[in-house]
Amino acid sequence: MPAWMTTFYADWGPLLRIVLSIVAALLLRALLQFAIRRIVRSITKSVRRIEGITKEDSPLAQARLLQRTETIASVLGNLATWGLTFTVISVVLTEAGVSTGAIVAGAGILGAGLGFGAQSLVKDLISGLFIVFEDQYGVGDSVDLGQAEGVVESVGLRVTQVRDLEGTLWFVRNGEIMRVGNQSQGWARAVIDVAIEYQSDVHLAQEALARAAKSIDGKAIGEPEIWGINALSGDQIVLRLVQKTKPEDKDEVARTLRLAVKSEFDKSNIKLVSTANAIYVNVKN
Amino acid sequence: MPAWMTTFYADWGPLLRIVLSIVAALLLRALLQFAIRRIVRSITKSVRRIEGITKEDSPLAQARLLQRTETIASVLGNLATWGLTFTVISVVLTEAGVSTGAIVAGAGILGAGLGFGAQSLVKDLISGLFIVFEDQYGVGDSVDLGQAEGVVESVGLRVTQVRDLEGTLWFVRNGEIMRVGNQSQGWARAVIDVAIEYQSDVHLAQEALARAAKSIDGKAIGEPEIWGINALSGDQIVLRLVQKTKPEDKDEVARTLRLAVKSEFDKSNIKLVSTANAIYVNVKN
Amino acid sequence: MPAWMTTFYADWGPLLRIVLSIVAALLLRALLQFAIRRIVRSITKSVRRIEGITKEDSPLAQARLLQRTETIASVLGNLATWGLTFTVISVVLTEAGVSTGAIVAGAGILGAGLGFGAQSLVKDLISGLFIVFEDQYGVGDSVDLGQAEGVVESVGLRVTQVRDLEGTLWFVRNGEIMRVGNQSQGWARAVIDVAIEYQSDVHLAQEALARAAKSIDGKAIGEPEIWGINALSGDQIVLRLVQKTKPEDKDEVARTLRLAVKSEFDKSNIKLVSTANAIYVNVKN
Amino acid sequence: MPAWMTTFYADWGPLLRIVLSIVAALLLRALLQFAIRRIVRSITKSVRRIEGITKEDSPLAQARLLQRTETIASVLGNLATWGLTFTVISVVLTEAGVSTGAIVAGAGILGAGLGFGAQSLVKDLISGLFIVFEDQYGVGDSVDLGQAEGVVESVGLRVTQVRDLEGTLWFVRNGEIMRVGNQSQGWARAVIDVAIEYQSDVHLAQEALARAAKSIDGKAIGEPEIWGINALSGDQIVLRLVQKTKPEDKDEVARTLRLAVKSEFDKSNIKLVSTANAIYVNVKN
Amino acid sequence: MPAWMTTFYADWGPLLRIVLSIVAALLLRALLQFAIRRIVRSITKSVRRIEGITKEDSPLAQARLLQRTETIASVLGNLATWGLTFTVISVVLTEAGVSTGAIVAGAGILGAGLGFGAQSLVKDLISGLFIVFEDQYGVGDSVDLGQAEGVVESVGLRVTQVRDLEGTLWFVRNGEIMRVGNQSQGWARAVIDVAIEYQSDVHLAQEALARAAKSIDGKAIGEPEIWGINALSGDQIVLRLVQKTKPEDKDEVARTLRLAVKSEFDKSNIKLVSTANAIYVNVKN
Amino acid sequence: MPAWMTTFYADWGPLLRIVLSIVAALLLRALLQFAIRRIVRSITKSVRRIEGITKEDSPLAQARLLQRTETIASVLGNLATWGLTFTVISVVLTEAGVSTGAIVAGAGILGAGLGFGAQSLVKDLISGLFIVFEDQYGVGDSVDLGQAEGVVESVGLRVTQVRDLEGTLWFVRNGEIMRVGNQSQGWARAVIDVAIEYQSDVHLAQEALARAAKSIDGKAIGEPEIWGINALSGDQIVLRLVQKTKPEDKDEVARTLRLAVKSEFDKSNIKLVSTANAIYVNVKN
Amino acid sequence: MPAWMTTFYADWGPLLRIVLSIVAALLLRALLQFAIRRIVRSITKSVRRIEGITKEDSPLAQARLLQRTETIASVLGNLATWGLTFTVISVVLTEAGVSTGAIVAGAGILGAGLGFGAQSLVKDLISGLFIVFEDQYGVGDSVDLGQAEGVVESVGLRVTQVRDLEGTLWFVRNGEIMRVGNQSQGWARAVIDVAIEYQSDVHLAQEALARAAKSIDGKAIGEPEIWGINALSGDQIVLRLVQKTKPEDKDEVARTLRLAVKSEFDKSNIKLVSTANAIYVNVKN
Repeated sequence: MPAWMTTFYADWGPLLRIVLSIVAALLLRALLQFAIRRIVRSITKSVRRIEGITKEDSPLAQARLLQRTETIASVLGNLATWGLTFTVISVVLTEAGVSTGAIVAGAGILGAGLGFGAQSLVKDLISGLFIVFEDQYGVGDSVDLGQAEGVVESVGLRVTQVRDLEGTLWFVRNGEIMRVGNQSQGWARAVIDVAIEYQSDVHLAQEALARAAKSIDGKAIGEPEIWGINALSGDQIVLRLVQKTKPEDKDEVARTLRLAVKSEFDKSNIKLVSTANAIYVNVKN
Repeated sequence: MPAWMTTFYADWGPLLRIVLSIVAALLLRALLQFAIRRIVRSITKSVRRIEGITKEDSPLAQARLLQRTETIASVLGNLATWGLTFTVISVVLTEAGVSTGAIVAGAGILGAGLGFGAQSLVKDLISGLFIVFEDQYGVGDSVDLGQAEGVVESVGLRVTQVRDLEGTLWFVRNGEIMRVGNQSQGWARAVIDVAIEYQSDVHLAQEALARAAKSIDGKAIGEPEIWGINALSGDQIVLRLVQKTKPEDKDEVARTLRLAVKSEFDKSNIKLVSTANAIYVNVKN
Repeated sequence: MPAWMTTFYADWGPLLRIVLSIVAALLLRALLQFAIRRIVRSITKSVRRIEGITKEDSPLAQARLLQRTETIASVLGNLATWGLTFTVISVVLTEAGVSTGAIVAGAGILGAGLGFGAQSLVKDLISGLFIVFEDQYGVGDSVDLGQAEGVVESVGLRVTQVRDLEGTLWFVRNGEIMRVGNQSQGWARAVIDVAIEYQSDVHLAQEALARAAKSIDGKAIGEPEIWGINALSGDQIVLRLVQKTKPEDKDEVARTLRLAVKSEFDKSNIKLVSTANAIYVNVKN
Repeated sequence: MPAWMTTFYADWGPLLRIVLSIVAALLLRALLQFAIRRIVRSITKSVRRIEGITKEDSPLAQARLLQRTETIASVLGNLATWGLTFTVISVVLTEAGVSTGAIVAGAGILGAGLGFGAQSLVKDLISGLFIVFEDQYGVGDSVDLGQAEGVVESVGLRVTQVRDLEGTLWFVRNGEIMRVGNQSQGWARAVIDVAIEYQSDVHLAQEALARAAKSIDGKAIGEPEIWGINALSGDQIVLRLVQKTKPEDKDEVARTLRLAVKSEFDKSNIKLVSTANAIYVNVKN
Repeated sequence: MPAWMTTFYADWGPLLRIVLSIVAALLLRALLQFAIRRIVRSITKSVRRIEGITKEDSPLAQARLLQRTETIASVLGNLATWGLTFTVISVVLTEAGVSTGAIVAGAGILGAGLGFGAQSLVKDLISGLFIVFEDQYGVGDSVDLGQAEGVVESVGLRVTQVRDLEGTLWFVRNGEIMRVGNQSQGWARAVIDVAIEYQSDVHLAQEALARAAKSIDGKAIGEPEIWGINALSGDQIVLRLVQKTKPEDKDEVARTLRLAVKSEFDKSNIKLVSTANAIYVNVKN
Repeated sequence: MPAWMTTFYADWGPLLRIVLSIVAALLLRALLQFAIRRIVRSITKSVRRIEGITKEDSPLAQARLLQRTETIASVLGNLATWGLTFTVISVVLTEAGVSTGAIVAGAGILGAGLGFGAQSLVKDLISGLFIVFEDQYGVGDSVDLGQAEGVVESVGLRVTQVRDLEGTLWFVRNGEIMRVGNQSQGWARAVIDVAIEYQSDVHLAQEALARAAKSIDGKAIGEPEIWGINALSGDQIVLRLVQKTKPEDKDEVARTLRLAVKSEFDKSNIKLVSTANAIYVNVKN
Repeated sequence: MPAWMTTFYADWGPLLRIVLSIVAALLLRALLQFAIRRIVRSITKSVRRIEGITKEDSPLAQARLLQRTETIASVLGNLATWGLTFTVISVVLTEAGVSTGAIVAGAGILGAGLGFGAQSLVKDLISGLFIVFEDQYGVGDSVDLGQAEGVVESVGLRVTQVRDLEGTLWFVRNGEIMRVGNQSQGWARAVIDVAIEYQSDVHLAQEALARAAKSIDGKAIGEPEIWGINALSGDQIVLRLVQKTKPEDKDEVARTLRLAVKSEFDKSNIKLVSTANAIYVNVKN
């Protein structure tokens, strides 16, 4: 460098660096804001592509996606702004000759303490992000989150709200959800197990099940399946009737099938085994 | 810089930096106090907006919110004051030529030890903050926290106090609450399962249930639902009566429904299955 | 600085710094001792205020509070003294030109090892501090700590001593207490569930319960509540009698109520269901 | 170095280093992209070789493998690009005289916090990578993941989607899968346990089982095995019939065998023990 | 400093520092040995004072305390000696110009690895120290450690040895002991629950219990308590007899009471409920 | 050093150091490759010696050992090569004047994040290495890994593949295996518990057991043992017959013994207790 | 230092330091080898003394102790050799002017990753060391390790091998052993609980037990104890017979006692309660 530059730099270096860092921070902030939006959007898309989610994008889904992207981008943007502010203050102090070592060390200790305590918070947020990105469930889905079962009322970054049959509202931390069972995805199956007496004629019973399965034609998807002997002991034979349906129809279909099975069996004089002895009791799912 | 500035700085730099850091600390403290209040307030609002909490802001709720904001801002403010004091002492020692390396290292070891041990404390506090911010439950709500069930008596940053039916007061650490079940949120459902004898007429029983459901008109929300066969075995048929109510009326409604169901079934001569054999016994929720 | 100061400082700096650090340590120790006492006292008060503990301060409670404050302040004071001694030694060694890097590194490794192993100790102590500050329980309270149930004999910083019904003395580490159930706080409720035969007249039984509830007038708080059908099956109806009492009277009241219920039911010829079939057996709480 | 080089270097060193680092970053990125693809490919192959996976490479499997390699290489490539960008920015700032210490320290604290919280994410991803590399299961396999059981619908890096019998779609985090039970690998065995009455002739029963096993010749692999007395008590003898099949035929074969066993036993007048007393009830697997 | 000192110091500084550090180490070791003994002794005393242990110091207890103090002081002394030796070697190497950075870093990595693995060891030792200091149990006490139940045979720093009824010797790691139940502390209570038939006269039964309680006058502490109805169902009434005793007499007293209750009830013709139906069976504690 | 060396070194030091480090890396790599092979081999041998594994080295076992050594040496060799490459790049950058501090810090953060997430991977690999070195089980052994039970199909570094009775292939992560139960090691014992009626003659029953034990002479190792009364109640006496066999014969021997016991008892008119009442039912192991 | 020394040192310092460090390493290694042997031996002894193990040192035990000391010393010696080699290489590189910072940082990251993953390995080894030092169990002892129960076949540093009754060989990782139950230590007790009918004469039964206890005089240690009523209900009285024996005789003694009790009770016409009703069934321990 020419001498005058060196001199200039030596004289005004600190001020220059302070200004430079502030300008850099502003530029970086703008850049980050832009980058965050683009990344969030592209990750959302790519995650959907990678995970092979191909459900039709209804207007509702589109709106939800847009809103989610906004929310996350805004959260990350705030994070970036605060981080940059913090950095600029450090730089200014350094250039003013104030040693930041002790401050940083102090902050480090505090940060480590918080970091350990806050890891479940971070875990919740990361899990929440992926639940949203992978679209594991949305408002209105009937889910089993392990910690609670019911209908999703709200999907947040940190907690999911689920309302169960009795109206209790469950707040489940996303990081505590080990696996999600979504009962509103694509299709469902009504499964009717019947434990009939050992003396019964298996083929007669299977025919009765087939007749019973006809009673729900409107809500059936495909043909009913009547499986063979699923369990066998000295006093009973367990048969199974399986019918594919739409998820929202499943419980109603199962109830209708139970009623039909009962009347068909009564007609054919096939006796069910009583609860105390039965291996499979046909219970609402 | 002109030479006199350089000389001045070299001579009086340390003192200057000590004074500068004290002034900076005071300014920073004022700034932080202001920032904390603003952030707490805005986070409170934004969390509510993000999580989609839209309950009407009663005066009670407003007061509670204000009090909470005050409490949290005060706690954070104290934290900041102590942190700054600690930093200024470090800076003064450094400038006085006392090496702070060993002190910081010693504090670091102590801090790490405390940090590991204190992480459950931090976890409790973070969980407490979010319980308050997300308004998961408030005083008077009937909740199931997993560790205890009952009516909330107090919501603290570290522990929540819940009193159960027998009057035992439970102190539950917020960080140990994996999921919250709030039974006082919006609405509830009284669910009455009845296991009737296999020989009973299903339609007659459903009509009896419908008549029974009429007995609580005052406290019902919407129409009662009478579901079909929820479980089936050789000696019983399980039906279900569901009635939406206000959360505070649920238990009373369920009891009234049980009484009405009993008298209707007695009239229609429909027999319930005895406890030992029944799949579903109708129990208080 | 004038030249003589610079020279003096360069010549005698190390000694000066050693002396300075010792003086600073002594001052700091005095300051810390004072601060600890003030902080402990103010935290005790503020925690009580924040958590909304408003029980009247009996002389016993006052004495306990004073003793606790003394104990904690003394422990923290010792900690501070040892920490300062350790720091001064480091500073002296540094100034004498002995590199403390290796010593600190060695201590760091040792410290990390101890820190990981000692975290449950720190956790116990922190939990103990909060149990005392939040006054979750005191000597003589009847508590359920999860790990043990009984009457508190002693509340220590690290362990709580509880004696159960059979006289076994339980030492429970405070950090292992997830939730505390305190049965001696404010009020209690005696809850009597009775499973009567299905054929019984519900209203007659409720009247009998009401008459039985009158037998304990002296120890009752408020009116007894007689709830409706809490459970229903083919062979029984479950009713509930609830009576608020003082915590120390609860068990006695429940026993008196059971006796009164028995004689009233015998008079009204209402039959209880036998244990093997009953959903709720009325058991001592 | 000749003097002019030294001078040149001293004057233009910083700029030179900035340019150098940018060029190095670009080169490194190209190198990494290339390396990632090669490594992913070779690891895929070597893992398969090490683990001894020798299944024929069907076109479907080939395509899946290719797609997986692409996905992973792309993910890693993105990671590398972002890392390099981050590094170049740091270098530029350093050379421009801006101290990066504070920035890095701040990022370090943030990173540690995120690192702790994100470890379950990393764990999920690593587990996912190995599930894919080791080909533990693929779409269409019938698996037991501990957290859920059913047919695999999708294998992602972070979650596996499994649909169970009733149509519920389970999202299981890969890191939570302790062990995988794959029921569609190579071959399966239908196992039929029969508890016959103590008075029955064991050899007669074994012959009946042998005759029953002949009924499924088409789907059998190898000969059926009839094991001796697997359990013995005062009222029953438990025998076992085992038949190897193709995985997809197993359930059907078991049902056919149960039917055949029943009719053969009926013919030979061998009585099965009723459910309440039987040690082994023959239940669908 | 005068010039000759500076010169001397510059010339002989390293050697001086080596000698100084060795001397300092020796002094420090003597100091630590002394301090350890004093601290161990004072902590022992103060812990006992803080925790409020006031049992009379029998000669046996005094001897045990002395032996423990010796052991712990010796262990800590060894630790200090080794630590100082290690430090002196580091200092010598540093002064000889050998960079200790790499050594320390290597040791750090090793140390971290060991530290993580050794934390359960440290935890055991810390727990052991507190068990001894707080005198939670001693040799001969009958304890329930959760992991094992029986009579304490030896209390070590790392493991406690307990021998159960059948003579099995249990080695329980102190860090795994969550709570200690000490059955030999102060006093005990024999608790006799009796489930009598519903038709029995409660007052007659209570009188019989009172007469039975008189049979053990020699070993009783205070009056026996006869509680009211602890449980009630359609076929039984549960009463309770409670008698305070010395810990070592408890089991014998309970057996004597059971025998006396049996003969008194036989005399008064009060019938106990048989095991299968009884809520409380009176079992040896 | 002579002046020319100093000058030479000052001028060409950086280049020299770059070349030196590359050469050193190449040498080190060759050394490591050699060392790894030798260490792996010697550890394999020494571990076997230390653990006292003395089974004859069949050709199959020799081949397996060789293959394993190759695999592990190759894995470690690759690790070393990559580590060295990474190091050389760092050195080159440093010598070229590019500050590696930021890069290393960035990598450190990433590494820590990955390290936490990858620890279960490392745990799996270490466990796998020891399973192989200690030869805990090999292909074809019948094992109980806790997570799965069956016949080992493959032993990998990260997962073990086990196929159970029904043909399900289990992938168990080695790090999740707390204990291994190997049923194919050395010898096994068939254990037959028989619960006979209380009225039976114990000596007669023992003689019958002895006669039954004679029926499997071919596959027995040593004499059968007939133990005395293992359990006693008002309606049964439990005896035990124990026979040592080769591991692969155990199940077959147990079945043969059960058949023989049944016929001997039938001959001697000794009655077994029925399942519902028996303490020990003789079940297949 | 004289000038020539300074010059010499400046010129040849690096080489000198390299040589010095190599020599120091060799010396240190010899020292460590010696120290390790002495420490291992003294710790072995002192641990035994501290823990109060006083069993006679049989030749077998002596040999085992010697072998163990050798093994451990050899392992630690190898560790030391490798550590020193690693350190010397670092020093040489440093002195040659190669910056080791990056290498150490890289190794640090790798080390941290491995350290986290390897902690269970370290835990196993530390636990193993203490099991050996404290002599918790040896080959041939009958132990309950929680994870497995049986006879110890081998005690390794990392795993213990236990063979159970059926011959399954269990490999239990030492770090997973929370508590050890050693049934071969000193003495054992055969405990016989008998549940007799309520109508039986307690004293007659006790006399019968006393007569039965006489039947095993040869293997008894001390007098048999006959305890009073251990449990009482409407249909039974539970008495207990306790006999001290040598550990290896316990099971045989218990069986003999059961046989004797049966014949004495048959003679005295005292009836045992049948299994279904009995509180205590006398089962093999």
